[in-house]
Amino acid sequence: MTPTQPARGTRDFLPDELRRRRYVIDVVRDVYGRYGFEPLETPAIENIGTLLGKYGEEGNKLIFKILKRGEHEATGEADLALRYDLTVPLARVVAQYQARLPRFFKRYQIQPVWRADRPARGRFREFYQCDIDAIGSTSPVVEAELLAAVSDVLTTLGFDDFTIRLNHRRALAAMLDASGIAAPLHGEALVALDKLDKVGVDGVAAELRTRGIDESAAAACLRFLDEVGRHRGEPRPLLDALSAFVGAHETGRAAIDELRTIVELAAVTPAARYVRIDPSLARGLSYYTGAIMEIAVADLPGSLGGGGRYDDLIGMFLGRQVPACGFSLGLERIIVVMTERGMFPADVVTGPFEVMVAFLDDSCRGAALSLAADLRRAGRTVEVYPEASRKIDRPLKYAAGRQARILALIGPDELARGEVALRDLAVRSQQTVPVGEAATAVETVLAP
Amino acid sequence: MTPTQPARGTRDFLPDELRRRRYVIDVVRDVYGRYGFEPLETPAIENIGTLLGKYGEEGNKLIFKILKRGEHEATGEADLALRYDLTVPLARVVAQYQARLPRFFKRYQIQPVWRADRPARGRFREFYQCDIDAIGSTSPVVEAELLAAVSDVLTTLGFDDFTIRLNHRRALAAMLDASGIAAPLHGEALVALDKLDKVGVDGVAAELRTRGIDESAAAACLRFLDEVGRHRGEPRPLLDALSAFVGAHETGRAAIDELRTIVELAAVTPAARYVRIDPSLARGLSYYTGAIMEIAVADLPGSLGGGGRYDDLIGMFLGRQVPACGFSLGLERIIVVMTERGMFPADVVTGPFEVMVAFLDDSCRGAALSLAADLRRAGRTVEVYPEASRKIDRPLKYAAGRQARILALIGPDELARGEVALRDLAVRSQQTVPVGEAATAVETVLAP
Repeated sequence: MTPTQPARGTRDFLPDELRRRRYVIDVVRDVYGRYGFEPLETPAIENIGTLLGKYGEEGNKLIFKILKRGEHEATGEADLALRYDLTVPLARVVAQYQARLPRFFKRYQIQPVWRADRPARGRFREFYQCDIDAIGSTSPVVEAELLAAVSDVLTTLGFDDFTIRLNHRRALAAMLDASGIAAPLHGEALVALDKLDKVGVDGVAAELRTRGIDESAAAACLRFLDEVGRHRGEPRPLLDALSAFVGAHETGRAAIDELRTIVELAAVTPAARYVRIDPSLARGLSYYTGAIMEIAVADLPGSLGGGGRYDDLIGMFLGRQVPACGFSLGLERIIVVMTERGMFPADVVTGPFEVMVAFLDDSCRGAALSLAADLRRAGRTVEVYPEASRKIDRPLKYAAGRQARILALIGPDELARGEVALRDLAVRSQQTVPVGEAATAVETVLAP
Repeated sequence: MTPTQPARGTRDFLPDELRRRRYVIDVVRDVYGRYGFEPLETPAIENIGTLLGKYGEEGNKLIFKILKRGEHEATGEADLALRYDLTVPLARVVAQYQARLPRFFKRYQIQPVWRADRPARGRFREFYQCDIDAIGSTSPVVEAELLAAVSDVLTTLGFDDFTIRLNHRRALAAMLDASGIAAPLHGEALVALDKLDKVGVDGVAAELRTRGIDESAAAACLRFLDEVGRHRGEPRPLLDALSAFVGAHETGRAAIDELRTIVELAAVTPAARYVRIDPSLARGLSYYTGAIMEIAVADLPGSLGGGGRYDDLIGMFLGRQVPACGFSLGLERIIVVMTERGMFPADVVTGPFEVMVAFLDDSCRGAALSLAADLRRAGRTVEVYPEASRKIDRPLKYAAGRQARILALIGPDELARGEVALRDLAVRSQQTVPVGEAATAVETVLAP
């Protein structure tokens, strides 16, 4: 016999779980659609050259590679690979179809990606990303709209306690310069600073030392971060402090001004209540060039999603620079938090079954199917218990297990009289009505 | 620079095309949901052993295989493979989670599958299947419900001219027996008969000869099929003729009785008008054991979908027989026909843009974003033209290209007066209203 487990690190989604996923995805689509983002889907398989070299050394190792086929299979070579994120395929699409796309191309994309990571709690080899990206403009209106759209998604799902941490790659560089950390060591410093949340000031200090950062520079940087901590992310005082710290640093001042504008624009959108400045936020990915952002809730380590401006990536496919800014929400993490907090509406959790139609013997099969057709025409969700059952116990038990609200039963007596027995499984009442009036009677029972 | 084409045989779905796909998928989900089918999704990647040996010699060659990773990559061996259809994963799921699934498990599954076929017009290496399957009952109510659900999907999409061709694997065997074709040659005969539509009676006669079928037996079989052709699939006379032809053949008579019951039950459902009997319908797949069906429209060679009963497949995973019956709709083919016939509603074709908000200079950015937030709260689809534009031409042209209905414009004058200019791009009229009344004014313009 063939083993029946799904492949390691992948999951089967049974109906109960899938209903929750669909609910979240439908909200995401609906909200992003109202912001003028349009849907895009790309193939699961890409030419291997499209992906290699885009995710760094470590990323290359985590890409699932597909064997050549037919006579070439024996070479052991790969010519295709599974999608690793949604940003590189977007960059490819923008380059390939530029003439057909609007000047400002805003797309959302909700598809699985595959990474050959070692599976762990909450880490899978197949998982969904929900990305929005706006291509073609350097205006800070783009950042403000992204933050508004993401906030709208989260509040529509019922989140009201999240924080949007906002920073800027060039403000970060200016802060490191002002601390006295030499430019070639900025990368090392950022890796260490990125852990501030997890390991605290002392931990970061140790790591900065290990990574060869000058002690007094590291101390200056950490002193600044510690000092501004008392503002708790409040944008105005924090940006003022940052501005004072970087002094006359030209690109730094420009970046801080950009952050001011983004905060000011976001203030009139659904993102208003949630925006904080976090001068230590670094974001791992190397392709960001401007504003960067991350969303977190208190009861989940890590983030619900993140993003930022990346004005150079599309140029790798197109040969000329095209500005871009995007945000990626983590579907799995949102679902984990919503499930733990009981945030799903009741009908998403239990499923939408309304009526189970059953028949006592085969002479009533046609009448049962005809009734089911009537009820479905009236918009009801109807399941037919497929087998005749002399006793009512079986379909009754089954209907209860399926959480149907009504059991509609036709036996030879009901058939002879042109009737159907309707049992309300919630209040355990029963009525018998002419078949032609069943749809109305069902509607009355189901009316809220 | 990296090349920008999608991988051979795969497609990028840009927004216009994706809206059409989504429309069809939403109808399929909605209708199948009303029939009590529940959603299921399985991973794109399966352990290679799950798939090998399930699709025959030819199928094995068309499976995309994934290289082992890390130190094992150099071996050139594959341990995973891409999903090839939705039926084998379903069988695996039923075996794996039997204790958690209801006794009658009815699921729909709409996901892509991958086959390394040579790409051709209308044949892709990544394509979607839309499957429904009902597990756990041998009752003909199952077949009737499947036909009703599929018919309901097609009529909801606007099809009213399709035909459901119905046959039975054991009726087919009885017909071949009655013709005098020896049982070991049934497989050969079916391959030839399956081409009756394409090559006609003479073509099939020639192929039967080539495949070693006795001439007089072949003639008897073709004479019968030719003779019943005048019934044009009409179930009653056709089943009577088939019954007379197979005579006392026991399993044949039982199969014909099953077909009679299915036709009779389907007659009270949305499938009623469409069911025909086709005694030559064979269906390629080897795993069918009972009723088989296929749906076709006149203007498309081949079928829109097909299915049948397969009571033995799940046993390959579970070790005991579990009855099952399913139907698979071809999403790509449905979309091809609907596009050619212009069957999509207008808003699916053009997209849902309602309002484009634009601003004349950066002092108006905040007011523009605030207006966009108001309109979205009122349920509108709103895009913000992200860059200040001293002249109205650019946003106007862009809004027209995006097929927005209204351009909402805020310049310094409007800002000073707390107003917004609303231009109806359909009738080229313009009005200026206080910002607080914009949502109401937009609603009036958009009212049908």
